[in-house]
Amino acid sequence: MDFPASHILSITQFERFDIERIFTVADQMEPYAHRRKMTRVLEGAILGNMFFEASTRTRVSFGCAFNLLGGEVRETTGFQSSAISKGESLYDTARVLSSYSDVIAMRHPDAGSVAEFASASRVPVINGGDGANEHPTQALLDLYTIKCELAAKCREVDGLRIAMIGDLRHGRTVHSLCKLLCLYKNVKAVLISPAELSMPEEYVEQLRAAGHEVIVSDALEANICDVDIVYSTRIQEERFSSQEEADLYRGRFRLNQAIYTEFCQPNTVIMHPLPRDSRATANELDVDLDGNPNLAIFRQADNGVLVRMALFALVLDVAHLVDKYSKDVPWHTANRVI
Amino acid sequence: MDFPASHILSITQFERFDIERIFTVADQMEPYAHRRKMTRVLEGAILGNMFFEASTRTRVSFGCAFNLLGGEVRETTGFQSSAISKGESLYDTARVLSSYSDVIAMRHPDAGSVAEFASASRVPVINGGDGANEHPTQALLDLYTIKCELAAKCREVDGLRIAMIGDLRHGRTVHSLCKLLCLYKNVKAVLISPAELSMPEEYVEQLRAAGHEVIVSDALEANICDVDIVYSTRIQEERFSSQEEADLYRGRFRLNQAIYTEFCQPNTVIMHPLPRDSRATANELDVDLDGNPNLAIFRQADNGVLVRMALFALVLDVAHLVDKYSKDVPWHTANRVI
Amino acid sequence: MDFPASHILSITQFERFDIERIFTVADQMEPYAHRRKMTRVLEGAILGNMFFEASTRTRVSFGCAFNLLGGEVRETTGFQSSAISKGESLYDTARVLSSYSDVIAMRHPDAGSVAEFASASRVPVINGGDGANEHPTQALLDLYTIKCELAAKCREVDGLRIAMIGDLRHGRTVHSLCKLLCLYKNVKAVLISPAELSMPEEYVEQLRAAGHEVIVSDALEANICDVDIVYSTRIQEERFSSQEEADLYRGRFRLNQAIYTEFCQPNTVIMHPLPRDSRATANELDVDLDGNPNLAIFRQADNGVLVRMALFALVLDVAHLVDKYSKDVPWHTANRVI
Repeated sequence: MDFPASHILSITQFERFDIERIFTVADQMEPYAHRRKMTRVLEGAILGNMFFEASTRTRVSFGCAFNLLGGEVRETTGFQSSAISKGESLYDTARVLSSYSDVIAMRHPDAGSVAEFASASRVPVINGGDGANEHPTQALLDLYTIKCELAAKCREVDGLRIAMIGDLRHGRTVHSLCKLLCLYKNVKAVLISPAELSMPEEYVEQLRAAGHEVIVSDALEANICDVDIVYSTRIQEERFSSQEEADLYRGRFRLNQAIYTEFCQPNTVIMHPLPRDSRATANELDVDLDGNPNLAIFRQADNGVLVRMALFALVLDVAHLVDKYSKDVPWHTANRVI
Repeated sequence: MDFPASHILSITQFERFDIERIFTVADQMEPYAHRRKMTRVLEGAILGNMFFEASTRTRVSFGCAFNLLGGEVRETTGFQSSAISKGESLYDTARVLSSYSDVIAMRHPDAGSVAEFASASRVPVINGGDGANEHPTQALLDLYTIKCELAAKCREVDGLRIAMIGDLRHGRTVHSLCKLLCLYKNVKAVLISPAELSMPEEYVEQLRAAGHEVIVSDALEANICDVDIVYSTRIQEERFSSQEEADLYRGRFRLNQAIYTEFCQPNTVIMHPLPRDSRATANELDVDLDGNPNLAIFRQADNGVLVRMALFALVLDVAHLVDKYSKDVPWHTANRVI
Repeated sequence: MDFPASHILSITQFERFDIERIFTVADQMEPYAHRRKMTRVLEGAILGNMFFEASTRTRVSFGCAFNLLGGEVRETTGFQSSAISKGESLYDTARVLSSYSDVIAMRHPDAGSVAEFASASRVPVINGGDGANEHPTQALLDLYTIKCELAAKCREVDGLRIAMIGDLRHGRTVHSLCKLLCLYKNVKAVLISPAELSMPEEYVEQLRAAGHEVIVSDALEANICDVDIVYSTRIQEERFSSQEEADLYRGRFRLNQAIYTEFCQPNTVIMHPLPRDSRATANELDVDLDGNPNLAIFRQADNGVLVRMALFALVLDVAHLVDKYSKDVPWHTANRVI
């Protein structure tokens, strides 16, 4: 793909070279995201943070990433669009709104809508999630987190062993992660889910076509003992055809400290796309893992800011200027990094 | 009127001299709006973007205009006001909110409410639309667009020939435009609408009192062949007294490329206040005009940023300082201008 | 308490020394809030303005205060949290959102929620109101207003004579004010309310334990003749057990210019936490007081910006740097101060 000025609509537009370029820039953003320095490279630039579907964390993450580069944010925070109810096309909306900003981050409930908007936009558009379709910045921050966690152990993504757990059928994030992993070598993917919620065959085939080892199972404990990363996701009980079916699986995909200690290797990293369901009946990551230093779920969320800063810097072609516009931070910033 | 510090509440407060002053400053804003340069003249200033009625495009346009001058924006985006439901007067609301910012842009569903707010405000208030009453920045950007499109043909607003089409009875924008045109000389206004939706007599009389030629008709084709500008608006079928009445007019006020080619002079400019209804049943501008270089509807929307920047610069008395605070733009800005 | 980096959750965390430190910094903010100068000391910093309950004025006041120090604001404006409805804990929400900003101002409908959020936050959290519990910045701005109004008469808070009027039972602001006054000496507090809405005994006892004189009454006129400050609050009629009960009190706690002239000493200062109910049936401050120079209710609201600027400067440890980063204001700023 071509920087600058590309739209970021789908992970399918990336080659491994693109990914590595994005991650190199994300690494460069770390002192800014952690407030050891600030940069004003995008002073005067405007992000149009167009969230036509409510999403506090993704919206604020995009806005914060742009502010950290020195830019301003104008935004919309839900589907109140009187214009669309008056019959305005997405083409017209895009032509008008794109003149107000220098780059647009957009979330919309309809699959394909962001690409349609981008086709009429005069400025780069970054997909912040278009319904069941794609959420490419989430996929990138997941892979970036894997890269960073492995790097701390002097490892690379090539050779990764990962278990994905939960609702692998409907999970947009695990689908995207499978696709991205096809750009790497020698991956072992363990896909653990109830049979009703197993990974769609197309993703399994893509992994195998890339030369990766794939294990499919509905048993948690036996399959998490030999991996670098456990990537957990929510299981929604209403997805099953009957309550009896759901009851069969209740609690079988829940990871807690006791299971971790008994079955996982030391240093196995735990990831989750968040939000995790912390109610007692939920079937995922137990809060008794919160003190475990290998629980990477908040580092993962933090990485979203780095990756989004990197994408803004690349599409606006200022990655090489970020340090030139840096300044000291005069305010108190202790306790920020976890 | 007096700059700085005036409220901008109604187009009736402008003399031709004021309009020309605003447009001169709007012209000066063009390199900033198009990101060839940036200015920080309003660094540290705060716009209170008080939208007590939802409006994505007008709200973002005001906010973007203020950001482009270097200022910050605090805003409210809908009628959630617990204070007003607790019996707070608009006077109290204005006294309190006006201390938080340096200028206020305000939209409110009630006619007259913005003027009432302004009477208690300590900072200049710009009317962003008060119900059926006024939307002066829309009127100014319409006239500014007419000026710019004519200037590209070495013409002036004096001598303009314009056709207004659609629901001229309820259209706030065409009413305001008629009033503004009374400040100019030798205008020919062709008012094309169903009889039920014709221009109110007061506006027709104002145009005639200004010495202008007015033609009233319910026929589209015969009356668009000799004008510089076609200004189209939406026809809302529910405005008719019966469906039979509505059916009589269905499609008779729709402009498309075939009609344009057959009846309009080459270079006739097409305007529309937007949003346009792009559904198949709508009776206005066809999408087959989108490739027509004389379709000015997106340039018209873009001009809203220039006009709003000019108003902010004038009410805050920094028009003469904008260039002094200018800087280079280091980020990628191709493809912005259409 | 310790600056920097403390959370501001409750007025009970303050000693008199802390209060005076905050007020000294608030005084220092006055030229910036009144736009005689600007400061860029927090350039590059981000406020997370997390309002999980609608509140235009408090939200905008916090955001404006941060902008006036040069910082940026990212915000949420209502309870739309899909994450919480998916079972996310406040702990997780806080871990994630707190990485996006340098300080958080938070309002939430549930008592105790802000403290729970703060316990997981990596950056300082300022309570912007947590249901029936606390609203510490309102309490501070009330006391700061008392200090400023008395200072204009060469008086101090020690020795204050204050009448609190209205619904003293449910009023969060008068409860907090009572607590803060316990840090001072020799106060006379006159508590005027219907018997059903009288000040809870714990606050009366705290005042007396601090050595203060307390008078409890349900008669307005006889008890406002010998005080420095009249602090009026709303009476909500639905709080009474019957309409007959409510009718008994109707109009008995309403202050207007005639009552003020007849019963108050000249220069008695009138305060109110706002919003005041300006409907004809309301029982509080009459609009015929609006021209009275001792009506301090809008100065009181203005002081909220000073106090919030002071808190941001203190928790981020830049109070000593504010003037170092100051600049001239080039735009028009007349008529701001009332």
